[in-house]
Amino acid sequence: MRVIGVDPGYDRLGVAILEYDADGKEVVIFSTCIETDKKSSLNERLFTAGSSFTKVLKTYKPDALAIETLFFNQNQKTAIGVAAARGIVIFLAQQYNCLVFEYGPQEVKVALTGYGKSDKQGVMDMVARLVRNVPEKALDDEYDAIAVATTCLAVNGRV
Amino acid sequence: MRVIGVDPGYDRLGVAILEYDADGKEVVIFSTCIETDKKSSLNERLFTAGSSFTKVLKTYKPDALAIETLFFNQNQKTAIGVAAARGIVIFLAQQYNCLVFEYGPQEVKVALTGYGKSDKQGVMDMVARLVRNVPEKALDDEYDAIAVATTCLAVNGRV
Repeated sequence: MRVIGVDPGYDRLGVAILEYDADGKEVVIFSTCIETDKKSSLNERLFTAGSSFTKVLKTYKPDALAIETLFFNQNQKTAIGVAAARGIVIFLAQQYNCLVFEYGPQEVKVALTGYGKSDKQGVMDMVARLVRNVPEKALDDEYDAIAVATTCLAVNGRV
Repeated sequence: MRVIGVDPGYDRLGVAILEYDADGKEVVIFSTCIETDKKSSLNERLFTAGSSFTKVLKTYKPDALAIETLFFNQNQKTAIGVAAARGIVIFLAQQYNCLVFEYGPQEVKVALTGYGKSDKQGVMDMVARLVRNVPEKALDDEYDAIAVATTCLAVNGRV
């Protein structure tokens, strides 16, 4: 199973393609952080982000989308933008034949560290230990995309 | 200018295609309310709604999308779903070469009735008087889509 993990946003959209390698280890095939122009309108940024995301889907043809459940703890304007970006990602992934898997933040922590209250650094340390080919320097959004994709592989097992 | 007005939702998505006819009157070319299956998951419903909306874009090739500005006064779960559906509509409209126009509820009221505090019935009465080919019986979502498309035509004038 090839999984595309996404940390959705209209400003930065973390994307990671993961699968199991021949040794049964999770490996990053590709990852990036799609960034959009601050000077553009929200609607233009949503379009740019969605278009770039479509290119990744077309190139890597994942079988599943892994994405975190959305909770609103931001301000209303940010929340609307993130929910919109997330909706676009979920729509496009299904258009390109992905199953959609959602995980809460706790599920990601448990899958990676065995403990639901790990901090961000603890999760990232485990990602670096468990997963092959994790980029050394990347934005948080890209690491979060790798973490949720790893969760999806761990939960579904080797298919 | 041909406008597609949308009242976004994952449960019901009101859609209306309007333009000026030869007499300079706003006319409904097509309108519908896309409804999705209550028994399906939110993500499936977003996909169904977006796919049906794509068909309308392909068939009627509008130049502009008219959509209401989103305010969150619903519960959080509904709000996430509506914001997601709205994001998908805004993305797809741009993919099919539409300009995007957003209007607040007050702008719609002023454009149609000349008064920012009209009630829903007042707006609907003016829609029925101003616009040709409005369906006699339709769900609110469909009328709201006609109202926001009419606003877009009125604001932009005859192009």
